[in-house]
This record gives sequence, C-alpha cells and structure tokens, in this order.
Amino acid sequence: MASRSPSGPDAVSGGAGEVGAAPGPVAVVGVGLMGGSLALALTRAGVPVRAYDPDAAALEAARAMGAVAEAAPRLADAVGDVRAVFVAAPVSRIADVVHEVLRLSPDDCLVTDLGSAKTAILAGFSAAERARFIGGHPVCGGEQSGIAAARDDLYRGATWFLTPSPEARADLFERLHGLIGLVGARPVAIDPAVHDRLMALVSHVPHVLAAALIHQAAATTPGGREALRSAGPSFDDLTRVAGSNPPLWADILLVNSHAVLDALRDYRGRLEAVEEAIAAGDRDRLLDFVADAARGRERLRVERGRPDVGAPWRITVGVPNRPGAISEIVTALGHAHINIEDLALSPGPPGGSGELVLVVDGKENAAAASRMVARLGYRTRSVPV
Amino acid sequence: MASRSPSGPDAVSGGAGEVGAAPGPVAVVGVGLMGGSLALALTRAGVPVRAYDPDAAALEAARAMGAVAEAAPRLADAVGDVRAVFVAAPVSRIADVVHEVLRLSPDDCLVTDLGSAKTAILAGFSAAERARFIGGHPVCGGEQSGIAAARDDLYRGATWFLTPSPEARADLFERLHGLIGLVGARPVAIDPAVHDRLMALVSHVPHVLAAALIHQAAATTPGGREALRSAGPSFDDLTRVAGSNPPLWADILLVNSHAVLDALRDYRGRLEAVEEAIAAGDRDRLLDFVADAARGRERLRVERGRPDVGAPWRITVGVPNRPGAISEIVTALGHAHINIEDLALSPGPPGGSGELVLVVDGKENAAAASRMVARLGYRTRSVPV
Repeated sequence: MASRSPSGPDAVSGGAGEVGAAPGPVAVVGVGLMGGSLALALTRAGVPVRAYDPDAAALEAARAMGAVAEAAPRLADAVGDVRAVFVAAPVSRIADVVHEVLRLSPDDCLVTDLGSAKTAILAGFSAAERARFIGGHPVCGGEQSGIAAARDDLYRGATWFLTPSPEARADLFERLHGLIGLVGARPVAIDPAVHDRLMALVSHVPHVLAAALIHQAAATTPGGREALRSAGPSFDDLTRVAGSNPPLWADILLVNSHAVLDALRDYRGRLEAVEEAIAAGDRDRLLDFVADAARGRERLRVERGRPDVGAPWRITVGVPNRPGAISEIVTALGHAHINIEDLALSPGPPGGSGELVLVVDGKENAAAASRMVARLGYRTRSVPV
Repeated sequence: MASRSPSGPDAVSGGAGEVGAAPGPVAVVGVGLMGGSLALALTRAGVPVRAYDPDAAALEAARAMGAVAEAAPRLADAVGDVRAVFVAAPVSRIADVVHEVLRLSPDDCLVTDLGSAKTAILAGFSAAERARFIGGHPVCGGEQSGIAAARDDLYRGATWFLTPSPEARADLFERLHGLIGLVGARPVAIDPAVHDRLMALVSHVPHVLAAALIHQAAATTPGGREALRSAGPSFDDLTRVAGSNPPLWADILLVNSHAVLDALRDYRGRLEAVEEAIAAGDRDRLLDFVADAARGRERLRVERGRPDVGAPWRITVGVPNRPGAISEIVTALGHAHINIEDLALSPGPPGGSGELVLVVDGKENAAAASRMVARLGYRTRSVPV
C-alpha cells in the first residue's frame, strides 16, 4: 500500500535499478491544482522540484508557498537537466508540450503527463518518443482549480494509471513507478484504450449525463413552475458534477471523443430499451431493469471494498533485455487488479536477460501474479519478503 | 413555515371552517414506511388514528409501536366513521383502494392518497368522486421501507403536493391542508399534469438514468478490467439511487408513463446533440453545454435557498360558493412558489359568496399573492397578522 515508502526497509532494490527517492531534480510543467499539488508532494518527499508555467503569477505563487525549489523562467530552464518531467498542462495542450519537453530534456529523462485521456495523446508520438514518454493519469482532483487550491495530500491513496507503450524504457517506467509511490498514489498500469473506455464510462459520460439533466430541468417550466425549485435528493445526486470547469470538460470530451461517443450511443440504446418496456407496459422487464441495477451496485460495493491483505511477497521475473516486457507484465497485473507495491529492475548484459522484482500484498495475489506472468512466457519465483 | 401550528395563536380560523386539529378520527390505509410514519405523526399531534393493512403483521406492528389507536380488521371498519382517509397503498393499487374507500366512508369524509404520480390515478374517477378525493404526494421517503422504518418526523419540512380538481370540495381541501400542516409538511397545490411532468424530471428519469449507468458499467469489462472497480466519485453520485425498491419503481414508471416517456425522449435528444458536437469537434458548443449547466445549477441553488421571510400576512379573498374557486386559487399560488402557511374558509349563504383566508409569509409574498388572485377575478384585501 501507499503507506510503505519504496525507500523503506522493505523496499526492493535492484542492482542497477534506481528507486523513486534517488537523488536528482524533477520538473513539473504547469502548476495548477494538479501540477502544484504534485510539486508540493514531491518537495515534501525530499525531491528537488523545478517548475515552469506560462502563467508567471501561478509560478511565483508555487514558489512562494514552497511547492517548488526553483521557478524556471523558460521551459528549457526547467527541463534541461532533470531526471523526470511531469507535464500537467491542459489536456488539449499536452501533446504539444510533451513534444517540446522531449526535445529540450536529456536523453535519459522520463517524460510523463497527467491527462484524463490517453489514446489520442499517445497517437501523436513515434515509437522512439514513446521510449521516454510514458502516459499517466492520476484519478483525483478537487472542486477548486489553480495553485491556490494545491495541497500535498491530493494524490494520497489515489489510483494513478500508467500507460506504458511496448517501447517504454524499463528503467524509466521503474523511475515513474517510484515517484508516484513517493506522493502516496497507487500506480496501476493499463492499456491506453482500456483506460479511455473506462474513463468514458465512469467519469466522462457521467459528466455529460449530469449536465444534460440540468439542461432539461432548466428548459422545462411546466405550468409556469420551475422544476429546479422542487428538485429532490436524487436529482441533486445526479447533477452534483454538472457544469464544473467548462474548458477542462470540453477538452476532455474532445480528446477522448471516440470512447465517449461509443459510451453515449450505447447509453442512449439502454434508455430506448427502458422506453420500450414502459410503452409496452412490461412490468417484468422494468422489474428486471431495476433489480439488475441493484445487483450491479452491490457487486461494485463488494469489488471496491475488497482489501489488499497479507504480508508482502516478492516475485522475481526473468526478463529479456528487450522493450515491451515490462510494459506487458505490469499492464497484465494492472488489468487483473493486482497492485504492484514496489518494483525494481536489474538489467542483465546486452542481449542477455535481467531481473524484474515486484512486490505485491499477500500470498494469494503473489500466486495469481506469478501464474499470470508465467502465462506470458516468463520464468518467475516468489517468496515472502 | 411548518413551525407554526395551525392551532397556535397565529392561526386563522374561519367561521364555519374547521382547522386541522379539529377532533374526530382519521384513517390510514396501508402502514408501510409512508403510512406508518404518517399514522405516528398524526398520533403524536393528538389525532386519533385508525388503520387498516391487508398485512396483519404490519398492522399489529403499527399498533404495538403506538402509531395507531385502533387496528381495524377490515377496511370498512377503519374508514366507516372518520373525517379523513389517507390511502398509503402501492401506487399501482391506489385507484382501486380509493374507489373502495369512497364507497365505504361517510359523505363528508375527505379521501386522499400519497402516490408519486397523479394524472393516471385521477383519471379513473368521476367528477362527483373528485369532490371528495383530492390527490396528494409528499416528497420524502427513506432508504428502508416497511413499518419498522417508520418515524414521526418523516414529513417534517417536506413539500406535500396536493392536486385538487376543480370539483374538489373547499371544506375538504381546507381539512386536508390542516392535517398536512399538523405533521410538519408544507402543502403546495399543483396541477396534476404539472406535478407528473415535474416528478418525471426531478425523480423518475433520474432513477432510470442511474440504473442505466450501472447497467452499462456492469456490462462493460474493457480488456478484462471491471469498470466498477475503478469508479470515482462522479460515478458514485450518479448511481446512488440506482436499484432501490424494484416493485415500487417499476410501478411508478408505469403509472407516470406518459410524463416519463416524454422526458426520456427529450433527454435522449439532448445526448444526441452533445454527440453531434463531439463528433464535429465543436469546442464552442461543448463549452456552452457545460457552462449553461453551471448556470442552471447556480439558479437552482439560489432558487432553493431563497427563504420565506417576513412576518405573516393575512389575505382575505371573496369567493363565490361554487366549486373550482379554491382549487384555482391555491394551485395558482402553488405554481408561483408562494407557500400558504395557513388557510381557512367561511362559506357564505347558498348561492352567495364566502371568504377564504390565507396566511403567507412576508409583505412581498402577500403582495404577489394578492395580485395573482385579483388577476383571477377575485376581490382581495391583505393585512399583517
């Protein structure tokens, strides 16, 4: 869990691998709520943070509040000599900024982002660029935006999705995994297309539904009576997220347009089916519709309440020194909901094979993870830490 | 407000009018959560309550907990000698039970219900029957159902919609208004079709939307990953009401089918418009869509937060002794969101005209109400109480 620091006594530590707390500055580009909170959390964790933001006032505020050690006047000054860059720009700007950062940063520098949609952003990069650029998306946020709302615990306990491409460099993925653990988040690797469909379903479409419901209520004044005035708790629940941050949401809907359109069309079809049942007076179908929803909610409750329990186990995986192995392994575990508490890599000689060490919680997770990794064709052994 | 009892020192009291606390037993038919809570609240307010429920165990539980003075073995025993009957049956059974109650109860007995949809229920009654049967719908409830969950403060502060037909007897409407004030609810008169459209919008459609979203998430396991597991707070907000009480909701959707179908179709059209904007990459339209929702939510907040302030004012309205006058006046004020804190009627001689006395909060509401009533063709005068 996030409570164990990768640099603590339980930490694995590969030969040539570096752990998240390894020295060297990290850059944060964009110090709004997300970037500012990240800078603050990294600083508190002892990482020297350089920041750049085109908004000079926001940048100065971040420096004044102690979130960053150094406020860089230009992007090049922030990223020229760091081991990792977090691009916390608006989602519509991320691809451009990442291109720029890749150009300006050292060859062994990890570049990542915090965007809520991944496929469209990754599509703009070559295989060579995707060796250093590994997409990310922390699932958290706040009602307020901007540096003034930044706080160092924003990421604590949050899922932080990572979408390593097959080309992603294993050492850079390891570095990213460690940095995310440092700010208290739980890194979970996931296929970018899966990520986008998932976010469409649990976040982007819900925002559209909420806004559409407010529109409908606002447009309907039956008999001169304003619907809004009489709204009850179910209406409040459904519309709570409506209308927040228009530019952010307009951009998210556009950047994740394929997944959102698919989900909205599917959703409209489900509404049509309910309408048919109502029009046909088919009580049984309506009973099923509501009862199945109750079962779905219950499953959700059970699924999410399931704790990761047990003492840590260490899984050692023999991996060839070729791209794709790490990405394949961690994404498979992410899809299976097995949290990787810690991760370290010892590369072997060129053309030979190295070792990937993973720490997961509990014997059961270790067994499941080992089976899964073995099925992918890798040798594994697992022991209690 | 509900804090002033109609029998308190500020109460108006028409000549021949009766106030809510007037003596005589009241019957409650059906002692689930709603009927049981109503019986409890009326009993606590000093009204002798008789109850009937086809479920003998529920009836006995209501008696044992002190909610009812008398548990009647048959419907006829409960309603044969009372001044008012509240039918708290499942919405699909209400019309049948009300027919039965009208047959079994005295000629001067008010009959009302607690159903969440009104037009379809009222359509089953003749003009003569609608003189005594005045529809009602308290907007409140609980997570649990059944008599075990009953509580005497369920109605405190709740809006209780009333849908008096033009044929509704003025003295019976007055009696109903008083009884509802006794249990702490705020009676608001409203046209039945307006009520049904309103409820479709703020309650029935939201339930469908929530259930459909759970269905979609449960059916979608992108890349083997269960969407439900990663759901965030916006998904939780939107699905909180999903799946509760399938029989209740199946019946509500069917009884309010016209309004629900209209609202669902309209809603689908709104989603389609968003899809078009996304597909066209039209950022400006998406910005407007989200920003307008923000404005709608803000209007909601302001509308609902507006307190009814000021000292009570008494409005005296000259009304002819003909059906329809009361219904027309109180419904107009209900549609204008003017709360009638107290109401009393002094009928005049046959063929002549009587007086309706209304108490509203504050000079501004009194002025608005007076203008509105004058526009309907009635003489009014208003003075501070």
